[in-house]
Amino acid sequence: GITICEDIWYPAGPATVEALGGAELIVNINASPYHAGKREFRERMIAVRASDAVAFMAYVNMVGGQDGLVFDGYSVIFNQEGELLARGKGFEEELVVADLVLEDVFRTRLHDPRLRKERFLAMAKGDSPSVIVVSEEAAPPRPFLSPTFTEPMPLLEEIYSALVLGTRDYVRKNGFQKVVIGLSGGIDSSLVATVAVDAIGRENVIGVFMPSRYSSEGSRTDAEKLAKNLGIELTVIPIEPAFKAYLEMLEPHFRGTEPGVAEENIQARIRGNILMALSNKFGWLVLTTGNKSELACGYATLYGDMAGGFAVIKDVPKTLVYELARWRNSRAGYDLIPESVLQKPPSAELRPDQKDTDTLPPYEVLDPILEKYVEEDVSLEGILSLGFDEGLVRRVISMVDRNEYKRRQAPPGVKITHRAFGEDRRLPITNRYRG
Amino acid sequence: GITICEDIWYPAGPATVEALGGAELIVNINASPYHAGKREFRERMIAVRASDAVAFMAYVNMVGGQDGLVFDGYSVIFNQEGELLARGKGFEEELVVADLVLEDVFRTRLHDPRLRKERFLAMAKGDSPSVIVVSEEAAPPRPFLSPTFTEPMPLLEEIYSALVLGTRDYVRKNGFQKVVIGLSGGIDSSLVATVAVDAIGRENVIGVFMPSRYSSEGSRTDAEKLAKNLGIELTVIPIEPAFKAYLEMLEPHFRGTEPGVAEENIQARIRGNILMALSNKFGWLVLTTGNKSELACGYATLYGDMAGGFAVIKDVPKTLVYELARWRNSRAGYDLIPESVLQKPPSAELRPDQKDTDTLPPYEVLDPILEKYVEEDVSLEGILSLGFDEGLVRRVISMVDRNEYKRRQAPPGVKITHRAFGEDRRLPITNRYRG
Repeated sequence: GITICEDIWYPAGPATVEALGGAELIVNINASPYHAGKREFRERMIAVRASDAVAFMAYVNMVGGQDGLVFDGYSVIFNQEGELLARGKGFEEELVVADLVLEDVFRTRLHDPRLRKERFLAMAKGDSPSVIVVSEEAAPPRPFLSPTFTEPMPLLEEIYSALVLGTRDYVRKNGFQKVVIGLSGGIDSSLVATVAVDAIGRENVIGVFMPSRYSSEGSRTDAEKLAKNLGIELTVIPIEPAFKAYLEMLEPHFRGTEPGVAEENIQARIRGNILMALSNKFGWLVLTTGNKSELACGYATLYGDMAGGFAVIKDVPKTLVYELARWRNSRAGYDLIPESVLQKPPSAELRPDQKDTDTLPPYEVLDPILEKYVEEDVSLEGILSLGFDEGLVRRVISMVDRNEYKRRQAPPGVKITHRAFGEDRRLPITNRYRG
Repeated sequence: GITICEDIWYPAGPATVEALGGAELIVNINASPYHAGKREFRERMIAVRASDAVAFMAYVNMVGGQDGLVFDGYSVIFNQEGELLARGKGFEEELVVADLVLEDVFRTRLHDPRLRKERFLAMAKGDSPSVIVVSEEAAPPRPFLSPTFTEPMPLLEEIYSALVLGTRDYVRKNGFQKVVIGLSGGIDSSLVATVAVDAIGRENVIGVFMPSRYSSEGSRTDAEKLAKNLGIELTVIPIEPAFKAYLEMLEPHFRGTEPGVAEENIQARIRGNILMALSNKFGWLVLTTGNKSELACGYATLYGDMAGGFAVIKDVPKTLVYELARWRNSRAGYDLIPESVLQKPPSAELRPDQKDTDTLPPYEVLDPILEKYVEEDVSLEGILSLGFDEGLVRRVISMVDRNEYKRRQAPPGVKITHRAFGEDRRLPITNRYRG
């Protein structure tokens, strides 16, 4: 029997009907969108379907990226008792070969009355399935092959692999050769550049460092160190001339106002404009570097650091950004992403001595609240019952609610959680809902 | 009986069940998203539901905007023979009052055997509806009221009203007081400014004219004339200083290349950045001015003229932009939008003597092809069979297909057609589909 994609998720779906019709091997061809931890859940489900149908179940999953989705492979074969016989590679194409002894199904069914009972019921209702036998010829006997069997990756490697595959396929399938990334010396752009190098090779990644009057010396040395470690080209374009021009052009209109978010965003948008100009001139795809915590709270500049074709870590919370960076460093065996990048307090550097914590709670506090509100749809009351500070939670929820309009204009990026912005979580901009 | 929203679209849906249960008046509370011409189709359907159910049918439709959708009102009451008794206003809230003689339903049902037959069938199958009588008391007799009856608007007025209502509600419901619009002297920004003034009043609309080295003198006088006619404030901010700064900053990187789309887009993005800076500084919402023909073909600059919170005419094809402008002028009784704006050939003015027709076919040719491909999902072969030039159609389809990534990052705007980008037509960016 053949089933397609979500067929397999229905307990009384086509696989059951095919088993009632006598199918002993059921093949499910699938494109299952990845999120972290889904494989275990999926395999448990397939195991139960196989034992319910008393049939071999071959689950054939797509490998590759499609806009924001990644299909993770890990094709599997279960036997009629729900035992795992074979597992293909994750995030990589592979031919999974296994010899299956279909007589085992026949033998197990002799001892399992369930299918016979259900078949009688189906015949009584007049909707018993029609049976098409496609071949009666057995292949000549050959030596028995032991099936392919891949151990699944640990979680951080799995997530990192999804980012790499999703990025590689977005770049390549859309006809790009090279990507360009604004390197700020911070952790987000450092991780994105590292993923990009792993995805399409260092010769295809261009880093651009765009210092302003507020950039620290450490930012420059960190960006340079990272580019050197990755072996990528680093271009430096200071943004001061354009910033100065904007301030002068706007001076008659801004006169008498205090410098604030307008002046901050102008800088981010100059950087966005420079990256897009390089993209337009040389055909490079701009990768954006914002993470999920920022995007959730709107701590990002629309048309500034949000400008680009693909947002590699848009579904990765900031605390996970750190974990992935450390994991990648440990795999490299040295500080590929410089330790100073991992140590310094996060800053957008858009005004003197700016720190993310001027506006946001520390990410260790913020991310668990966001996880409850964004990933798990827990209400304000529900989150408070977990012991979080009320004023803080209200402020975070209000930031998330208010910034839907920015997320609406964000480029796609790799989905790695159960609830990715743009893919799964889409709310109206105009609403009176207060979390 | 009460039914909700799409209940009414099902021929054998809840309204039928309620009629079988004896309901003589069926109220449908609805939020029906507007598109041009939908009202006639909807009223015909409700008429048939009323005569099928042999019941009065009161269709109560929401009025207002919700992100990209507009709900157009035009609530109606039909009698048990499918005759229209009452119609409320379009695009405006109103209480529709009508006296209904429910005995008419009883009398008609005596002569119509259909309901009795269906009720027997439903009882035989055991799924006859349960009947809840909410009130047996009749109101004391009062003078018979003649029902509200509004004639529907002509099509251009209807579409214009949808743009006004959608814009007003997006602005107001999201807490904005004022909007800012980049006025180029062209037809698109002129129409958007006019809609904005009609939506929220001239004192709340700020026009910004941002000339470049390529702007014609006519653009300035047209923008000034329009602002004067509308009675709105016009700010002038030449973009040359920033453009010069960018060209100098990029000179070492662009050396040896020909000026092209990169240099053109820098100008559009400087304008986007200026409007966003004014928005950030003063809390004004940026309205974008691109039309549907441009957006379909990608003839628009991402983060440039596409930058803003609400895209008023994103679902209006260019030829309809002209019709709406002429209609609005005729209602004004004079050239509110200057005739010179309507006469001059469309141009983005991003390089010397640029015309839209350098890149696009004339809009009178382009729009019918786009209508077939985008609105009606007609294939290449289907469009060619209508007699269009093959090379041209292939080029247009390829532009539409290639530019999905831009549309993904466009702000919302008022849906007025059957198939609006972002609302109804959402395709993958990554695909091998060739129209």
